[in-house]
Amino acid sequence: MTRVFIYDTTLRDGSQGEGVNFSLQDKLLLTRRLDDLGVDFIEGGYPLSNPKDFEYFQAVRELPLKRAEVVAFGMTRRKNSAPETDTCLKALLDARTSHVTIVGKTWDFHVTEVLNATLAENVKMIADSIAFCKSQGREVFYDAEHFFDGYKANPAYAIETLKAAESAGAAVVILCDTNGGTMPEAVAAAVADVKSKLKCEVGIHCHNDCELAVANTLSAVRAGASQVQGTMNGIGERCGNVDLVSVVANLAIKYRRDVLVPGSLGRLTEASRYVYELANMNFRPGQPFVGQSAFAHKGGMHTHAVAKNPNSYEHIDPVVVGNERRVLVSELSGQSTILTKTAKYAVANDKAVMGKILTAVQDLEYAGYEFEAAEGSFDILVKKAAGLYTPWFERVAYRVNIEQGAGGPVTEATVKLRVAGATAHTVSEGDGPVNALDAALRKALLPHFPRLDELQLVDYKVRVVNAKAGTAARVRVVIECRDGTAVWGTVGVSENIIEASWIALADAIEFKLFKDQEDAADGRPGGA
Amino acid sequence: MTRVFIYDTTLRDGSQGEGVNFSLQDKLLLTRRLDDLGVDFIEGGYPLSNPKDFEYFQAVRELPLKRAEVVAFGMTRRKNSAPETDTCLKALLDARTSHVTIVGKTWDFHVTEVLNATLAENVKMIADSIAFCKSQGREVFYDAEHFFDGYKANPAYAIETLKAAESAGAAVVILCDTNGGTMPEAVAAAVADVKSKLKCEVGIHCHNDCELAVANTLSAVRAGASQVQGTMNGIGERCGNVDLVSVVANLAIKYRRDVLVPGSLGRLTEASRYVYELANMNFRPGQPFVGQSAFAHKGGMHTHAVAKNPNSYEHIDPVVVGNERRVLVSELSGQSTILTKTAKYAVANDKAVMGKILTAVQDLEYAGYEFEAAEGSFDILVKKAAGLYTPWFERVAYRVNIEQGAGGPVTEATVKLRVAGATAHTVSEGDGPVNALDAALRKALLPHFPRLDELQLVDYKVRVVNAKAGTAARVRVVIECRDGTAVWGTVGVSENIIEASWIALADAIEFKLFKDQEDAADGRPGGA
Repeated sequence: MTRVFIYDTTLRDGSQGEGVNFSLQDKLLLTRRLDDLGVDFIEGGYPLSNPKDFEYFQAVRELPLKRAEVVAFGMTRRKNSAPETDTCLKALLDARTSHVTIVGKTWDFHVTEVLNATLAENVKMIADSIAFCKSQGREVFYDAEHFFDGYKANPAYAIETLKAAESAGAAVVILCDTNGGTMPEAVAAAVADVKSKLKCEVGIHCHNDCELAVANTLSAVRAGASQVQGTMNGIGERCGNVDLVSVVANLAIKYRRDVLVPGSLGRLTEASRYVYELANMNFRPGQPFVGQSAFAHKGGMHTHAVAKNPNSYEHIDPVVVGNERRVLVSELSGQSTILTKTAKYAVANDKAVMGKILTAVQDLEYAGYEFEAAEGSFDILVKKAAGLYTPWFERVAYRVNIEQGAGGPVTEATVKLRVAGATAHTVSEGDGPVNALDAALRKALLPHFPRLDELQLVDYKVRVVNAKAGTAARVRVVIECRDGTAVWGTVGVSENIIEASWIALADAIEFKLFKDQEDAADGRPGGA
Repeated sequence: MTRVFIYDTTLRDGSQGEGVNFSLQDKLLLTRRLDDLGVDFIEGGYPLSNPKDFEYFQAVRELPLKRAEVVAFGMTRRKNSAPETDTCLKALLDARTSHVTIVGKTWDFHVTEVLNATLAENVKMIADSIAFCKSQGREVFYDAEHFFDGYKANPAYAIETLKAAESAGAAVVILCDTNGGTMPEAVAAAVADVKSKLKCEVGIHCHNDCELAVANTLSAVRAGASQVQGTMNGIGERCGNVDLVSVVANLAIKYRRDVLVPGSLGRLTEASRYVYELANMNFRPGQPFVGQSAFAHKGGMHTHAVAKNPNSYEHIDPVVVGNERRVLVSELSGQSTILTKTAKYAVANDKAVMGKILTAVQDLEYAGYEFEAAEGSFDILVKKAAGLYTPWFERVAYRVNIEQGAGGPVTEATVKLRVAGATAHTVSEGDGPVNALDAALRKALLPHFPRLDELQLVDYKVRVVNAKAGTAARVRVVIECRDGTAVWGTVGVSENIIEASWIALADAIEFKLFKDQEDAADGRPGGA
């Protein structure tokens, strides 16, 4: 099986997508998840462009990655200058990654009209920049921006820029369909021509402006490209980059290529949804391979035939990509995922408990819950099903009041709990309703559980579950928490955002209390 | 230019999509719109399957269609029976259309395992059914279900079924990739082989399970297919049918084929959105050609180059497909972005106003605002800087109270406004604080501005701006609204989620009021 190397640029090109905005913490979490998935290269950002990307490259060095190489992205040096004094190249090297990707111009029109440089100077810019990074001990990938447009307009010049990159030491030359306007047969012909003229490896980077990014990418691989650049779920500017999820699934299943690591394919669906959660985007139900509707059967003729033989209306077994079949008859869903997640509880062999868990997950998902980014809540759900759950506190009532008059808004929350056999009734102000509730809860609980002091709320996200009904629809709140040793997410769903927040907040606190109890039982030291 | 005939099955195969449900009235409206767009054939439904489809065929005869032929869909006769007594074929003929489409089995496995028929009987079922409909004066299209799977498993038998259809009088034989699992080069090879063996016209019907439906369709057309079946926006079962919007745009622009009628291409965006409206689905921002983000530019380097020459990062002029360029305001973009965005206000030459706008955007971005999904708020910001803003109402105070005791949470909001010189003081309950505030605001404003009734909240998203400070951090609320003619986003940022929601809600309402005022000034008719 020929290896195809997967180069993920979700964190860089993906973040150019409309409405996509990753925090530093998001970027680090996603890096770990992509590494787990077996991605070969992770383009972490463009260190010169903003301070967040710069901080990322400092922080990412502390992550215990298994196999992925983190790559910093930058441009060729400015015209009429030396690479040694170029601020962009300096920032690129300061990122201290083993690999860097340098983007340069291929299209003569762009060189003269956008850069205002001569064609010869552009070739020198490419060669100088790559040679300089090589001399500083970096492995260099060269992104040939607008390659296919340039190749169409002036093939000799386009090839000349690639040869300059190769001679300067680029390990891989990546052909970019930057504007996404090229047809698959043109991609195949150009890649084959480049392969015949260069000795180095060739990569492909496609955009989806004609809904052909996947076809173009596969076409390039068939013509000899060995590196594929893209983003998870195809997020990215305009119509997005190529969706690595579809590319990986097609390469592995349809073309029998060696991609990612053994076992990755079965985690594609979970990984796709994790990225949506981090990016605070809605899942796309019809997304090929991993969408919730990708193996959903509605037509009577289809569901009947599928019940008889799934092959009849499914091109692959959904389990292969970690997805599941959905038909009118309710089925025990996501078994393999849930089995994996419950393995540590030693309940996987208990059919009754497993049945309870599956039913609970189905009911909650139907109500709008998603557990992909809420392992804390899932953990509590399993404990409940397995009879291992005793509540740490019980809610009697709460009230939140927000008043806005002449000054700023004033928020006050009261909570009334049963905890350790007594009633705790506390009140607190806060910067907003969730902050006020959190403060009142802590006031009530801290005397009993001093280690709650270590609990920090890291992120808070809200999404409408059924967007059709406006503000009256249900909202899903996802809260991310941490203490000194772990990070976990919890989820709450309600028509009322305050109630949904309460549910997630209460789960977050209970997860922390269970965690401390289990750590103590294991003899692990507490706290940070 | 070779003609490619467009066969729309939005009303039949599209309605198999999860959550898609057209009323009879919707179906008739969509038929007229598709006819206007220049679609050649409109598959209206499956008359046997439900009474609505049967009624549709009665009602559609009254429509004054310009060119489209309405087609009824049905299956081959049951096994071991005569076509004359077959209820499905009877219903098909009772639809009284000039054209009918009959679907039959091509894949030997389906014949024996799903139909439980012999291979010979299936060939007879195809031939009998087509010959019977021909004898009743119908033009017949034959949909070869699972053609590509059948051709792979047993090519001789697959071709035999097609030949039977041709001999029985089918005008077009349509090769269906029913399960959506075939790769483009396999589609091309199979279509070429069929073309060499049949004399009748060949069509193509693709599904998007591998994200290759558009590529497969184009591949088939290049190999000689002259009819393309698909749905508007690619709605349909599982991952959907091929999106006719992308197919039409690619065929017309990239392959210079003759499709639809002159002028159609410029109405594609409008037509796509109309279908979403009818189906009560949200637009897909990244949809190729017609999505709101399809020509949206965010990266600073990109926006700068696009301002200089749109060709540099656009594969086509958005006007060609009736779409428009959008420049997103974000941390990744510089001054040139804002200059481009304000061009329509004729303030771009006023240095003082531009200075005010730039400062305001910078200050607000620093405070956590983002305008890329909030054109409504940006619009109001520009109006304020340009001295074109008079508030429609002023807030005196509000209060929101959420109480959770033994029952579900109860939310009540009061608002006190100055509007049209008087004080409006209203109260409302709601499903949550934002819903309650929205309801109270409407109660106060509707008597003054009845067209606010058209305003619908479509989506509501919340994110923490500085994720490091937990719930005490600022939150950014983005609200998406629509009326009968437009969709717009607004944004609010505050430490308090309720206050942030208020800001976004107030902007959304003001944007609607300004919009109605401007429409009235332009003499445009109001509302839906």
